[in-house]
Amino acid sequence: MISSKMLELGKKSSVIREIFEYGLKRKAEIGAENVYDFSLGNPSVPAPAKVTEVMKKLIDETPAEVLHGYTSAPGDVKVRTAIAENIKAKFGVDASLANIYMTCGAAASLTITLNAIVEEGDEVIAFAPFFPEYRVFVEQAGAKLVVVSNKTEDLQLDFDAIEKAITPNTKAVIINSPNNPSGVIVPEEDIKKLCQLLKSKQSEYGKEIFLISDEPYRELVFTGEKVAYIPCYYDNAIVCYSYSKALSLPGERIGYIFVAPTVKDSGDVFAAICGSGRALGYVCAPSLMQYTIAQCLNDTADVSIYEKNRNLLYDALTEIGYTVIKPDGAFYMFVKSLEEDANAFYERAKKFDLLIVPSDSFGVPGFVRISYCVDTSLIERSLPAFKSLYEDYQK
Amino acid sequence: MISSKMLELGKKSSVIREIFEYGLKRKAEIGAENVYDFSLGNPSVPAPAKVTEVMKKLIDETPAEVLHGYTSAPGDVKVRTAIAENIKAKFGVDASLANIYMTCGAAASLTITLNAIVEEGDEVIAFAPFFPEYRVFVEQAGAKLVVVSNKTEDLQLDFDAIEKAITPNTKAVIINSPNNPSGVIVPEEDIKKLCQLLKSKQSEYGKEIFLISDEPYRELVFTGEKVAYIPCYYDNAIVCYSYSKALSLPGERIGYIFVAPTVKDSGDVFAAICGSGRALGYVCAPSLMQYTIAQCLNDTADVSIYEKNRNLLYDALTEIGYTVIKPDGAFYMFVKSLEEDANAFYERAKKFDLLIVPSDSFGVPGFVRISYCVDTSLIERSLPAFKSLYEDYQK
Repeated sequence: MISSKMLELGKKSSVIREIFEYGLKRKAEIGAENVYDFSLGNPSVPAPAKVTEVMKKLIDETPAEVLHGYTSAPGDVKVRTAIAENIKAKFGVDASLANIYMTCGAAASLTITLNAIVEEGDEVIAFAPFFPEYRVFVEQAGAKLVVVSNKTEDLQLDFDAIEKAITPNTKAVIINSPNNPSGVIVPEEDIKKLCQLLKSKQSEYGKEIFLISDEPYRELVFTGEKVAYIPCYYDNAIVCYSYSKALSLPGERIGYIFVAPTVKDSGDVFAAICGSGRALGYVCAPSLMQYTIAQCLNDTADVSIYEKNRNLLYDALTEIGYTVIKPDGAFYMFVKSLEEDANAFYERAKKFDLLIVPSDSFGVPGFVRISYCVDTSLIERSLPAFKSLYEDYQK
Repeated sequence: MISSKMLELGKKSSVIREIFEYGLKRKAEIGAENVYDFSLGNPSVPAPAKVTEVMKKLIDETPAEVLHGYTSAPGDVKVRTAIAENIKAKFGVDASLANIYMTCGAAASLTITLNAIVEEGDEVIAFAPFFPEYRVFVEQAGAKLVVVSNKTEDLQLDFDAIEKAITPNTKAVIINSPNNPSGVIVPEEDIKKLCQLLKSKQSEYGKEIFLISDEPYRELVFTGEKVAYIPCYYDNAIVCYSYSKALSLPGERIGYIFVAPTVKDSGDVFAAICGSGRALGYVCAPSLMQYTIAQCLNDTADVSIYEKNRNLLYDALTEIGYTVIKPDGAFYMFVKSLEEDANAFYERAKKFDLLIVPSDSFGVPGFVRISYCVDTSLIERSLPAFKSLYEDYQK
């Protein structure tokens, strides 16, 4: 009677969600302070005070019918212009309002982009580990997701595997750096190598391959290192951005798509994005949030807390004996499972009230993801449990 | 290289948008006060003061990481509970939070619902005149839009035509009362008759037919008459609601889907809606707006201004000699074209700087739509132009 595909998607809640729900139950049983819940990627740092001030000032000083009125479908002209100017200043690439389409956050940026560019039979490549919804978004748009595993030792790009995966059907490649779920940043030299490879494949097949940069974690970086900006290295670049993490506004759903002016037939791609947003029911991005972020383009939530958490957790876990892929950004950490089956490891961790996510749902076996966007005190309290879990495996 | 369907959708801006853009140009030439722009359905009345107060109080009193954090995908539990309670109290039908899915406005309510319920080969019926995006939404979801024209004299349902249009492939019927573009309200007796017809067709074909009520204009009614609430009359009812017009918040994108508990396999339909929202990239509805509207469920923007505009315009136009379908709600009015071709009539009106929308894009010939969500003074100033236009046809 209804769409069996959508029913399945709706019924099969994600593994992360299941763990989170278990955590809620367990907290009710033994007290919230005794459950070490590292399951969700929900920013624990508040939005910068400036965001709140700007929001209040807008509410006080703008007529309500303007502030809460429709903007044009791609977004308010002044907001898009401000973002384009900011991109030019920050990254030194060309950009104008004609390249910026405001969205309801990163997921919307991705679904609108994918529906705009793919046609039946197309393939979209993602590198594992990857955000599990990529599969849902790519398949809903009518394409096939092709998964390429990163190297197990450092979760960096495996160029031999990538080269083998690109076919004449490859329409796009998604890159996500800093990465969810691993926190790993792809170094500039690897970005250059990837772009070079894609350029040669474009020539070989006589067609364009889009490189989609899904980068909601761009501002959450601890190394001081600059995260390579794809449009600096590759013409057919589309940036899917969100303010969810940078400004700690995940519930407000605000982000944008930047179709680089260097994209082949950039105007047509932008028009297709407008068509796709329209067909999916996105009338415009939330207006108050559009006007708010436009005044906070150089602000970031207090990332130092995530960095402190990372250092604390990384040092403690490695000292205990765990093998940890050191994350350079975001607020996730990938830790090697202490047995081959990460699901079994997750179950055993649960006995110590440690809630961590087995890596299989991210497309790779043998790891768990720890989301450390939590109170630092929770990490401190959890360390004995991590120690006991480790010792349990030495028996 | 990209999706030709989306490119076409993005390039072909709507007729309304074209007229609006022409209006902007013309205003720059001769002054905004001399252009009588009735093209857009953008609420001219501000949000109630209470909405602003609630919003500011939430910002002042809620920790930012909570207020702007993710809600669960179908929406905040307290918000959904409040809406369900409000539906029960207002309409006397059963409802719980398990039936409420918060959305980014009416367009999202429709696209998420349609993608959840239709499968290839399904037909969805809409009554003309209808909101032109229905076609885009239905076709994107993979179904075929079947258009049934209303009776020309009063734009009310034509039951003979409806009966002929229902087939074993009919998955859903969309009703929109008060109507965009006509402002007409379907009387309760006709709703009963429609539901009766659908019930008998369900029996005849041994399958369910959804009745989707798209009702963003529910609160904009001038007659004192209650707009029939579909779940009171029909089991397989899905209500697509938005606060855009009721609370004058169109840019903020906030609304909901109500899957009546009487719907066959209601839980599965709700799950499919969750899956559909997920696949289309809707992570959650904007959080600040969820919490805001939950405290304003019995508030409405000042509708009396729209009523005043309607009366002024209706009386003046009929006195001049125009044939007008008297609108009972919303902020639209359908006026008979003074020549057969509404597009030619629209072009002639343009010479008098009257910007009105020919009805063809709404699926019926021979009318124009006037959006009277404008300053009352604009209507007053426009009346001589309407008179001159009428006289121009008497020459």
